Amino acid sequence: MNLPSESMEAMLLHGERDLRPTRVPIPFLGDSDVRIRVTRAGICGSDLHYYRHGRCGSFVPSTSFILGHEFTGEVVKTGFQVIHLPVGARVAVDPSQPCRACEHCHSGRYNLCADMKYLGTASVVPPRDGAFAEFIVVPAINCHLLPDDFSDGAATMLEPLSVAAHALKRAGSVAGRSLLVTGGGPIGQMVVVLARAFGARFICLSDPRSFSRKTALLSGADVVIDPGASVPENLIRSGFDIAFEASGAPRALQFAIEQSQRGGTIVQVGTLPDNVTIPANQIMAKELQLLGAFRFANVFNQVIDLLSSGRLKVEHLVTKVVSFEDLPEAFAALDRGEDLIKVQVEGVAK
Amino acid sequence: MNLPSESMEAMLLHGERDLRPTRVPIPFLGDSDVRIRVTRAGICGSDLHYYRHGRCGSFVPSTSFILGHEFTGEVVKTGFQVIHLPVGARVAVDPSQPCRACEHCHSGRYNLCADMKYLGTASVVPPRDGAFAEFIVVPAINCHLLPDDFSDGAATMLEPLSVAAHALKRAGSVAGRSLLVTGGGPIGQMVVVLARAFGARFICLSDPRSFSRKTALLSGADVVIDPGASVPENLIRSGFDIAFEASGAPRALQFAIEQSQRGGTIVQVGTLPDNVTIPANQIMAKELQLLGAFRFANVFNQVIDLLSSGRLKVEHLVTKVVSFEDLPEAFAALDRGEDLIKVQVEGVAK
Amino acid sequence: MNLPSESMEAMLLHGERDLRPTRVPIPFLGDSDVRIRVTRAGICGSDLHYYRHGRCGSFVPSTSFILGHEFTGEVVKTGFQVIHLPVGARVAVDPSQPCRACEHCHSGRYNLCADMKYLGTASVVPPRDGAFAEFIVVPAINCHLLPDDFSDGAATMLEPLSVAAHALKRAGSVAGRSLLVTGGGPIGQMVVVLARAFGARFICLSDPRSFSRKTALLSGADVVIDPGASVPENLIRSGFDIAFEASGAPRALQFAIEQSQRGGTIVQVGTLPDNVTIPANQIMAKELQLLGAFRFANVFNQVIDLLSSGRLKVEHLVTKVVSFEDLPEAFAALDRGEDLIKVQVEGVAK
Amino acid sequence: MNLPSESMEAMLLHGERDLRPTRVPIPFLGDSDVRIRVTRAGICGSDLHYYRHGRCGSFVPSTSFILGHEFTGEVVKTGFQVIHLPVGARVAVDPSQPCRACEHCHSGRYNLCADMKYLGTASVVPPRDGAFAEFIVVPAINCHLLPDDFSDGAATMLEPLSVAAHALKRAGSVAGRSLLVTGGGPIGQMVVVLARAFGARFICLSDPRSFSRKTALLSGADVVIDPGASVPENLIRSGFDIAFEASGAPRALQFAIEQSQRGGTIVQVGTLPDNVTIPANQIMAKELQLLGAFRFANVFNQVIDLLSSGRLKVEHLVTKVVSFEDLPEAFAALDRGEDLIKVQVEGVAK
Repeated sequence: MNLPSESMEAMLLHGERDLRPTRVPIPFLGDSDVRIRVTRAGICGSDLHYYRHGRCGSFVPSTSFILGHEFTGEVVKTGFQVIHLPVGARVAVDPSQPCRACEHCHSGRYNLCADMKYLGTASVVPPRDGAFAEFIVVPAINCHLLPDDFSDGAATMLEPLSVAAHALKRAGSVAGRSLLVTGGGPIGQMVVVLARAFGARFICLSDPRSFSRKTALLSGADVVIDPGASVPENLIRSGFDIAFEASGAPRALQFAIEQSQRGGTIVQVGTLPDNVTIPANQIMAKELQLLGAFRFANVFNQVIDLLSSGRLKVEHLVTKVVSFEDLPEAFAALDRGEDLIKVQVEGVAK
Repeated sequence: MNLPSESMEAMLLHGERDLRPTRVPIPFLGDSDVRIRVTRAGICGSDLHYYRHGRCGSFVPSTSFILGHEFTGEVVKTGFQVIHLPVGARVAVDPSQPCRACEHCHSGRYNLCADMKYLGTASVVPPRDGAFAEFIVVPAINCHLLPDDFSDGAATMLEPLSVAAHALKRAGSVAGRSLLVTGGGPIGQMVVVLARAFGARFICLSDPRSFSRKTALLSGADVVIDPGASVPENLIRSGFDIAFEASGAPRALQFAIEQSQRGGTIVQVGTLPDNVTIPANQIMAKELQLLGAFRFANVFNQVIDLLSSGRLKVEHLVTKVVSFEDLPEAFAALDRGEDLIKVQVEGVAK
Repeated sequence: MNLPSESMEAMLLHGERDLRPTRVPIPFLGDSDVRIRVTRAGICGSDLHYYRHGRCGSFVPSTSFILGHEFTGEVVKTGFQVIHLPVGARVAVDPSQPCRACEHCHSGRYNLCADMKYLGTASVVPPRDGAFAEFIVVPAINCHLLPDDFSDGAATMLEPLSVAAHALKRAGSVAGRSLLVTGGGPIGQMVVVLARAFGARFICLSDPRSFSRKTALLSGADVVIDPGASVPENLIRSGFDIAFEASGAPRALQFAIEQSQRGGTIVQVGTLPDNVTIPANQIMAKELQLLGAFRFANVFNQVIDLLSSGRLKVEHLVTKVVSFEDLPEAFAALDRGEDLIKVQVEGVAK
Repeated sequence: MNLPSESMEAMLLHGERDLRPTRVPIPFLGDSDVRIRVTRAGICGSDLHYYRHGRCGSFVPSTSFILGHEFTGEVVKTGFQVIHLPVGARVAVDPSQPCRACEHCHSGRYNLCADMKYLGTASVVPPRDGAFAEFIVVPAINCHLLPDDFSDGAATMLEPLSVAAHALKRAGSVAGRSLLVTGGGPIGQMVVVLARAFGARFICLSDPRSFSRKTALLSGADVVIDPGASVPENLIRSGFDIAFEASGAPRALQFAIEQSQRGGTIVQVGTLPDNVTIPANQIMAKELQLLGAFRFANVFNQVIDLLSSGRLKVEHLVTKVVSFEDLPEAFAALDRGEDLIKVQVEGVAK
């Protein structure tokens, strides 16, 4: 039971560019739930979408709510049926809460569940609160115990790394293939990191921002290009085997289609506008495959293992860590397009 | 050797809507080639494209040439290395002449060969002459001996049927799935015929032309709809598993994307304009797969076997057969949008 | 709540070839469960295994239990949370009760769940009782409402038809391919029925029993062969594209491997002994794929739709229907190898 | 033209364990061929099979012939149609000579071509001579120009590395998966090297030879086990996702099947005896996939790129290099089972 007096600090999105610290009740703890004190949370591109537009695509919040679905924390209270997760445990949380009963859930694509309650999104009514708060309550089965050698920064990257890993999975094996990645934000960078670790032969990242291109070289790209400049002729002679569109820019999708070699694959993981003009005839004439990738399914555990193994590095992508009270300013900085990849926020000071 | 005096009757495309009978030399017969007297040839949508625009997408003929790549005929002369194909044999011809040496040819996707010499197209310079002529010369290995019970009409459908079969192959298995087919021209109709024979659970064909919709019911569609009219709500509640875009209309591609259920597949086999506006975000948010299908590879033999088995019917799609001299008028009728599915032409009278 | 006085008639397996009618308590009805009066149930090959050996492979019953997992019935009582399934409804039941929480369940292969509680099997302790009884209690979500035009006989075939459909799914598309099916029991016959409906080009069934071979011709086989006799040379010249081993006979698996063409696929759906000698080097030298198929996942609904559509026929496979009290004799007849494909039992007389 | 006087030094296999230097004519140079002076050649397991048994599985040489299909050399003469490959070029050679006309060649699986003329094997009559000679003549299109930074040792590993890469391709993506490799010979070791570079999460190699296990740790294995000793319980609790059988030992195939987790994949790349007893029921009950891998197709170029990139290391696997005259003794050493992985031979001294 939550006592009426139990409240917590939270950062509420009240509307377009209106993010304010507010005192809210601590959510109810169900029998199979745990209450987690958030120690680190990351800002996702979709959080920024909500901030900028007060909505994210077709998801329009019916009320003020708490964003944030990339986070790490400490279990501080457990429902009475939770026996495997002790108070004090340090956990990363998979924000997926699918219905487990529909066709998509049964067939292994639970990321497509129409009743998905993803943490920190307004895809359901009322919105499902997220992690930019002192506490969050989640089902115990969504929690993954963290090995001691996992930093909070790395652990908080597990969710976006899962999104990138899912995008790669959609493409089949990248081993030995040549890749184009359009967009050097967090997902694009992590696609590069993973593709390198999965044996890609050649990786080219395209981004108009110099800072993103420099970071991509650290992530493992062989070549970086500025889409505004002319593309080296020898680079594109035969076209890429696989392209990942991770920028959300219509021009990038067009570029990816144009630069794909015959029979090539394009994975669209970025959030694009509702209507985009594409060179559609090339889809047929080059017999391309354009594959959507939405969130992720069945990869969170694999990604923990990969990061644990030390064969992947993502810390260089956490370009800024701010205190909880500075979260609104961090959103504003991302909104202004400052040289940042991933921004994370620390937990509310105890 | 061809004697200088050997010439033949041919229908040459001289430019936009300019198709005229012309006397041309009979092509040279190579050692591994056969000369075929064409007894039946079909008009493909791409032939009509050439007729209407004097070009087909990016393929611009460098000179007048002979269209026609769907045909049946009789072997009348053989190169000296041809031992398995006697004079007098009745054959269907696979019009694919890939290089057999490039990456795509080696990996089994020879339809993507950049050096493909497809019969009756201007993808190479000079254009590769086709079958709207008294004779055509082709490599013997492209010829498939026809069982006696094959009518000329059915045999001439083998090439477009192969295109449809390849489109289905791109989608994986259709068994037990619900299908949308946009466009009731020859390819759309044959997608319906094959999908029915391959165990599709539900097939809906969409076409603005009443005649095409009626024909689709004969082809095996469960339901036909007019995209201009409002779509029955119950039809589209859960969306289609697989859609085939076979109309070449931008609006049809949009419709297919909109009507696809989450995780659905869209196969684009129609020739679309260079630029088409699509609801791109749905590709990602519904995690769709948009797959191009270009001509075909490795299905011609299978299609012969299927048609031979009697389990497929395509004769109802041959809605008109004209004499050779009436070929220009047949193109004009198709150009005017008359109620026709497949139009075939008889050989030059002996 | 079940009152202490509520009991029912059931056929209990007490040991090897020891099946006796016994009075047992009606199982407890959970909040999300329904009680079904069984109106028809089928005898599966695995039921016969239990009957013959007192066990089924590694599944050894810890106590007497009720077999039967293919059945149809009428809902007679519902748990208080069941709102979509009224008393009186006629239902077919998917016997799968996976954990919905493990890696296999999440990734869509719930048939591989280690905690699966399949109806009527001893894979768990105590065994999960099945349908050879007056009543059975199952979760409401396992029930599928039957269209009126479904006979009890056909509805009771949905479970084995799902097993056959899953085996076909493992093979990818059978459209246009040549098939060998070894074993003309119920599953082998239904593989033939489905493969025909899914566009297989050529289907050969092999079985030493004349009755099974005759039935296979009704099921849709093109050719039937007796593995004891010599195989026609022209039949096997090029080998089969796909083979389904549905007999459980070691010699049949060897035959399937030998008769597969290079690059071919063999699906093993029959229950084989623990140790079988196979021509292993052919797996490598012909680059075959040998794929296990275990029960089914995600096909029950598809199979209902297919059977409803009238495009599949399975009634000819129900070769005998007996009354409830004659069930032991029906097992004995199957055990003696009488000319039977599927035997079904009627419900306990009201 | 070859003058009658042109002869060369070659190592001929005359029978079981009978390998002798012999003077033979230099093979005829066709218009599209090149003559290569062999500078380095490797001994493959199949070469050893021929040496030991005078045959390799079903391939029985009709006459004495020259083994060796892993090699590097220098172009010394070119047919008159060869324009892209100058005399003096340093090349690696893909030994595949498929017919390019059959169903398997057309569909991209040319390694299954029944008319394959692989260098240095007796699969055709007469056997196709290989590279254990002063010169070899091959089609120019089989030659791959080597970058300068490629050592002869590494270049000569391209063929077996292609075999390993093909085995991995058969398994789909290994990224994030747990792997068992049975057999620490050259192919097993290279499977480990590639799997590590392609993102495998965990790699366990099993081999009874201590030397192979030690080498596997250098190749990138996480754990090595001796199949004769008891396997650590915690290692195998959940089973492996993917196993590669690369030893050719029946017991290893059984072990791979037993240690596979439900739904797992086993790739059989080793040459097994004709008859092997396997726990066949597990194939069905665990729904495994057992996939043969035979030689390779469409990977030679990718492997060159990967090795060029410096992200793969294979030099540690070349455990001995001998002079041409010491080749028979090198075979004998391998035959005795000495601690060797790959043995290579230098070219005939100029």
